[in-house]
Amino acid sequence: MPSGLRFLIAAKRCEITELQQLARTSALVNAVGRLIHGLQRERGLTNLHLASGDGHWAPALAQQIEDNAALQAAVVTCFEAMDLPASRLNHGARLFSRIAYALQGLDALPALRNRLRSEAWSTERATAAYVRLVGGLLAVVFEAADAASDPGISRRLVALFNFMQGKELTGQERATGAALFAAGQANAAAQQRLLRLIDSQERCLQVFQEFASPALYQAWLQTQRPEQQALLERMRRVLCTAADGAPLDRQLSQTWFDANTAVIDAMKSIEDQLAVELLSLCESRIEASAAELAEFEALTGERALKPQAAADLSFFEPSPSDAGPDHQTLAPAAPSGFGLQVDRSILELVQAQSQRLQAMGHELDTVRASLNERKLIERAKGLLMAHRHLSEEEAHKTMRQMAMNQNRRLIEVAEALLAMAEVLPAPTR
Amino acid sequence: MPSGLRFLIAAKRCEITELQQLARTSALVNAVGRLIHGLQRERGLTNLHLASGDGHWAPALAQQIEDNAALQAAVVTCFEAMDLPASRLNHGARLFSRIAYALQGLDALPALRNRLRSEAWSTERATAAYVRLVGGLLAVVFEAADAASDPGISRRLVALFNFMQGKELTGQERATGAALFAAGQANAAAQQRLLRLIDSQERCLQVFQEFASPALYQAWLQTQRPEQQALLERMRRVLCTAADGAPLDRQLSQTWFDANTAVIDAMKSIEDQLAVELLSLCESRIEASAAELAEFEALTGERALKPQAAADLSFFEPSPSDAGPDHQTLAPAAPSGFGLQVDRSILELVQAQSQRLQAMGHELDTVRASLNERKLIERAKGLLMAHRHLSEEEAHKTMRQMAMNQNRRLIEVAEALLAMAEVLPAPTR
Repeated sequence: MPSGLRFLIAAKRCEITELQQLARTSALVNAVGRLIHGLQRERGLTNLHLASGDGHWAPALAQQIEDNAALQAAVVTCFEAMDLPASRLNHGARLFSRIAYALQGLDALPALRNRLRSEAWSTERATAAYVRLVGGLLAVVFEAADAASDPGISRRLVALFNFMQGKELTGQERATGAALFAAGQANAAAQQRLLRLIDSQERCLQVFQEFASPALYQAWLQTQRPEQQALLERMRRVLCTAADGAPLDRQLSQTWFDANTAVIDAMKSIEDQLAVELLSLCESRIEASAAELAEFEALTGERALKPQAAADLSFFEPSPSDAGPDHQTLAPAAPSGFGLQVDRSILELVQAQSQRLQAMGHELDTVRASLNERKLIERAKGLLMAHRHLSEEEAHKTMRQMAMNQNRRLIEVAEALLAMAEVLPAPTR
Repeated sequence: MPSGLRFLIAAKRCEITELQQLARTSALVNAVGRLIHGLQRERGLTNLHLASGDGHWAPALAQQIEDNAALQAAVVTCFEAMDLPASRLNHGARLFSRIAYALQGLDALPALRNRLRSEAWSTERATAAYVRLVGGLLAVVFEAADAASDPGISRRLVALFNFMQGKELTGQERATGAALFAAGQANAAAQQRLLRLIDSQERCLQVFQEFASPALYQAWLQTQRPEQQALLERMRRVLCTAADGAPLDRQLSQTWFDANTAVIDAMKSIEDQLAVELLSLCESRIEASAAELAEFEALTGERALKPQAAADLSFFEPSPSDAGPDHQTLAPAAPSGFGLQVDRSILELVQAQSQRLQAMGHELDTVRASLNERKLIERAKGLLMAHRHLSEEEAHKTMRQMAMNQNRRLIEVAEALLAMAEVLPAPTR
């Protein structure tokens, strides 16, 4: 068999292995999404239970905890399935490290529930504990999106991660607003938090819009009821603009909670559709690649009978897609159609495969850029928090302000801050 | 065993597997470098042989071809070693696809040599064929650098790739200049080519300077003889500024060739040192990770005897390195010292490992940025070539001019061009 063909086949096998990993990762993301939703409900019921103090919500909470045990078992099963082919995983170290962190949280969950049963925690404190747990699970999804090597699947994973993150931020907004209304009094710190949550939600939904399939984005738009939106925005305005300490209508607590819950439930249905779409995309990509592999392998028989002419110099002839040495090394080229014909030379196959992988690489770079932006913004925020002893809200606000004043995008401000990091003094503790 | 610890161990195993892959890839890069050097010499001797036409260079050429057979066998052995653990490779599809392309070229090399023995090819045509072959081999090195997941190793691979590419461009400059002097007449097209080659060499050496160890960069500086540099620059000036068609001193052909050869040989010695440094870096990183893994595994015995307290809520307590939900998901944090103590809780281990991987990820992003710049510039150049029917030299010159006129960096011009790609009309053929 010509050695080029052998490696062409090895390349295709790698591609299939990577796609199979992605299918497993997608299944895991799906299970994690369902557990997160269950934990979000448990968090909401816990808050209601703590706030009411009369045991009214205890049965619903107990039921949810029972449901979550099953969801958690499903997630752990998926985690174990990842463990098996351990060393075969792209970026495995990072994904496993995220899983280890999430598992630490899940292992400690029974202790948290026990403590919540025996001590009168504030709703803030209980919320913060669940937020941390959900954050650990979302980090697993982020890593899965970051590790995907197929641009189409990566797009959908990025859309899904941002949608899940947006849903979590909506959940936190629900809790923060409900507590404000329930307290009957505006509070500047909580307002800051609300503003950041709203802002971050919008950022997530923008990325979702950019990377989701048009059909799913339309489906998401159709879940939105104008009257409900108007009601929510009115209540948001009341919450965010009231002077520190001013009275708030306690009656609105339930209205606020219900309106947000409707949004979150609609988001869950979209999330489920995203997951279904993702899985079927993985399957069809695996099928297509397996078919290509089969054709390559069939070719090895053909070629063994009919070896390439020993005087074939076509390798050294310039092809239309390249021109010079520098250019050629990283030959950028338009993706060519990839229909296989037995009589095409192996060189053409190798070139077509190369060009296809490069086009995929370019597309992947574009998709990953959005994840990188997120990482950079979070890093810059962390830097501000450490160096100026700011809260996350304050750091977020500072960066927004800088972006507005300088008429720049948030990512540009983040990059400028990180570039300055080397000249900043070390943070004092 | 606590499930968090299990995945922590799985993460460490992944890390070691990836490092072992990198060690194999580095050995391959080393072998490829030696073969490239041999092919560069074969190219030079072939040109001398074709130009002299008297058989004077035939024995030296025959000897070099024999030497290269051994170097090629060593490369193929390394390729085979990559093939074995096929599906375990990060970015395997791309690397294998590059290898398949390079192998097609190596397989066709005997046919090329035969043809060169029987036909009177021009030196340009012969040079172009070898340039293509070397380009295919350099693409393998580029892919290896792009796939590295350890930032320290990635830095060195990026330095090495750029140095190898710089050396190849020097070789092409040597051939182009020697042909010009030998012809005794200046030629505008060849001048354009020279200017691009000089410019690209400088770009490569800048990246080398940025990512090589200071010791090796110093070693490289020390190979440079001021008198030799001055002589080379004087001849470059003569070549690049002579009017189209003006006479050139044929006598300088040999002087030019020898001066460039001295540079190339000095570069080869630095390249060898880079390769040695790279291999020992891989080895020490594998050793360190294996030691950490052993400590983790020793811990599983300890922990099995002394399980974590069931009421341990430390997971839910805020740590100094994070602050809020959005922030926490992608928790940016300073890398902490990673000394193991048996009494540290598993949570702390998980957090430390997480932070370490994140810090590595940030560093890796920085290193990869330079490879991405290269890809973007090449893509933009390809775009210009396709849309405006320009040669590589013309496209390169156009972009340089745009950068100068707009006072922007080349990468910014490339990004702007690529951003406009969608609104450009499709290329006509």
